[in-house]
Amino acid sequence: MGIFIKGTYLVHSSGKLEKKDVYLKEGKIESIANTLYAYENDRVIDGNNKLLVSGLANCHTHLSMTLLRGIADDIPLKQWLENEIWPVEEKLKPEDVYWGAMLGIAEMIKGGTTVFADMYFPEDEVARAVAETGIRACLAPGLIYQNAENGEKKLKENVNFIKKWEGWGNLITTAFGPHALYTCPPEYIREIVKEATKLDVLVHFHFLEALWERDYCLKNYGLNPLDFLKQAHLLDAHTLIAHGVHLTPEESRNLSPYKIYLAHNPTSNLKLSSGIAPIAGFLKNGLKVVLGTDGTASNNDLDMWEEGRLMSFIQKGISGDPTVLNAEESFKIMTNNGYNALKMKGGVVEEGYLADLILIDLNTPHLTPIYNGFSHLVYVVHPEDVTTTIVGGKILMHNRELLTIDEEKVLGKVRDIARRLKQ
Amino acid sequence: MGIFIKGTYLVHSSGKLEKKDVYLKEGKIESIANTLYAYENDRVIDGNNKLLVSGLANCHTHLSMTLLRGIADDIPLKQWLENEIWPVEEKLKPEDVYWGAMLGIAEMIKGGTTVFADMYFPEDEVARAVAETGIRACLAPGLIYQNAENGEKKLKENVNFIKKWEGWGNLITTAFGPHALYTCPPEYIREIVKEATKLDVLVHFHFLEALWERDYCLKNYGLNPLDFLKQAHLLDAHTLIAHGVHLTPEESRNLSPYKIYLAHNPTSNLKLSSGIAPIAGFLKNGLKVVLGTDGTASNNDLDMWEEGRLMSFIQKGISGDPTVLNAEESFKIMTNNGYNALKMKGGVVEEGYLADLILIDLNTPHLTPIYNGFSHLVYVVHPEDVTTTIVGGKILMHNRELLTIDEEKVLGKVRDIARRLKQ
Repeated sequence: MGIFIKGTYLVHSSGKLEKKDVYLKEGKIESIANTLYAYENDRVIDGNNKLLVSGLANCHTHLSMTLLRGIADDIPLKQWLENEIWPVEEKLKPEDVYWGAMLGIAEMIKGGTTVFADMYFPEDEVARAVAETGIRACLAPGLIYQNAENGEKKLKENVNFIKKWEGWGNLITTAFGPHALYTCPPEYIREIVKEATKLDVLVHFHFLEALWERDYCLKNYGLNPLDFLKQAHLLDAHTLIAHGVHLTPEESRNLSPYKIYLAHNPTSNLKLSSGIAPIAGFLKNGLKVVLGTDGTASNNDLDMWEEGRLMSFIQKGISGDPTVLNAEESFKIMTNNGYNALKMKGGVVEEGYLADLILIDLNTPHLTPIYNGFSHLVYVVHPEDVTTTIVGGKILMHNRELLTIDEEKVLGKVRDIARRLKQ
Repeated sequence: MGIFIKGTYLVHSSGKLEKKDVYLKEGKIESIANTLYAYENDRVIDGNNKLLVSGLANCHTHLSMTLLRGIADDIPLKQWLENEIWPVEEKLKPEDVYWGAMLGIAEMIKGGTTVFADMYFPEDEVARAVAETGIRACLAPGLIYQNAENGEKKLKENVNFIKKWEGWGNLITTAFGPHALYTCPPEYIREIVKEATKLDVLVHFHFLEALWERDYCLKNYGLNPLDFLKQAHLLDAHTLIAHGVHLTPEESRNLSPYKIYLAHNPTSNLKLSSGIAPIAGFLKNGLKVVLGTDGTASNNDLDMWEEGRLMSFIQKGISGDPTVLNAEESFKIMTNNGYNALKMKGGVVEEGYLADLILIDLNTPHLTPIYNGFSHLVYVVHPEDVTTTIVGGKILMHNRELLTIDEEKVLGKVRDIARRLKQ
């Protein structure tokens, strides 16, 4: 039994729409052709007046922070973290993290995101939510170094997490999540990288989100940031670097030969006044760039459409060149680049790729008329335009209804938690 | 017969939600109280789990350019205008302008925009669409000076347009729309301002969207841009200036005592690489700032939520100060400031103000939990969260259904026009 999507529009590389039939089987795109025929037991989805594209890849978030959405805005980073976010986070129970993840997954599926890379704690609760809902994820328990003994203990726990969840249901992959250079010394990260290499998993790491990290690095380790990455053996790993706002052009060039993927989070970087990563230049220098929303405490949502749009607009604005981050390139960053960074064969509507797909309703005023598919995908589409979300060949939302999540229950639970957190 | 909105949430100035009953009569907000009682003939709307706020004010657009949405992106401004936009605009018939306006109005009502300021040609067609649909607008026929004879003729036509439409149905106000300093010499604008003053209407004018306008002004008129405004008598008028990207801080201070309203269009300015207007500084200098989407050929939509968010995010990002353009101030710019600029008593949910209101569904993952109303309104709300749009006490959309527009017919007509334009 497969899924047969009948008479839907695909976006040709020219931006033009092509009407096709698409057949999904065993979690993958099995065939794409002008005319296909459904088997008796196939689920048939009418693709008429809809665009079929890859789901979006949110490559950096702290999902359960949906619980803190809008709890504190418009204040400087240090004050925001120390006075607002951390004290509330201390009240979080493991069960809360699960419900926060459920809420975030509901929002992502409804907005067409099919895979996400997360870093939080306890990540077991996020894994539980992923397993129940059927979204795809790369999960990293956040790691902060306190002392040698505690560091060893946590590293072991993380190895256990990875052994437990890696490959689960062909949906979950795992990663180590050393938090940042100011919370993990290079020697500790070296140990982590050793384990990551042995287990063949990613490392997910915050890097140069704030300008002061550069000074911190020099002062505490006598290293510039790139030498820190080298010393920590992160250049030998498959590393997802979040932010990189304050990388220099030269550093971006030096990082490009490695399996380093920069997860750009334009909304969060602007909202917290961290700065603007000049990714148009990074891309020219060969750096591999992907996209994320960051946590909803600093965004304040998980809308990857908005994120893609913002990425393109800002690069045009700060570079003075309207040709950079064009619609096609931007959409590739929102989809295929993200899948590649997470070592997954997805993000493209082609035979043999993961059946992580979404349908977009074209029959709305804001998507009319349509001259170029990529233009609408990057510059216009809203989360609510997504009618159907499919992950690994399983339908998670159809006609805007979540099929693996009891939405009302999740909203109710989160409201209860929020009431407690705010006390 | 009035409209009785029962048990809805208003946003207190603290950001907290307050449950209230709201009664609308004769186009205005008649009363707000903890408990009100409906008359027999009143239309009752259930406001449970919804936020009642002012509709949004889109203070600069060229509405009928919805027809050109996404027809050409990612190319430099001059090439974009000369090779892509103008040749297609030449194919536009008056009837097309009407359907383009209908499409734009449909999008705006569905996204919670209740008033817009337009500049296009022939503006009669836009007025016709406004009158039919019941949205509120300030309409300016675009004026470009060619020669004395033609200039006189056009000015007369504009006076006739204003006499015909000003005050229509308590919905339409009008303005003169001299296009820009590089298309209208100061002497011509002086004549326009004279008429505008006589007729007590606004002047809507593009100003310093591009940096080269400064050189153009000096070279062609021997004036700096502020002296141009003075020479053109625009400082004596009630003037809506679109863009002002390249105003200096000093110029913004010098403009602040006048009835000059700057319509900021962050998406269009970024997308065309025009630059970033440093409005956080302008606001500090006392300049009156409002918000617009510009036309959809350079945006590519009429989403004022996205525009407000972008405005706030960018100012935080470029200023390095996350406290600027906070949620409450940003929402005021999206609503009340716009109404003020258009000389309308709206944009606030208070007794005596225009009943231009929208309801927002809070029962969604992305708006849960809610700690602060302004935070969600500026940083999260999507157009599709708007369930009901009311203009002048008339319901134009309810439960996402347009009540004054045949949506399918408009989409069909626009698709036909787009097919012809693309040939």
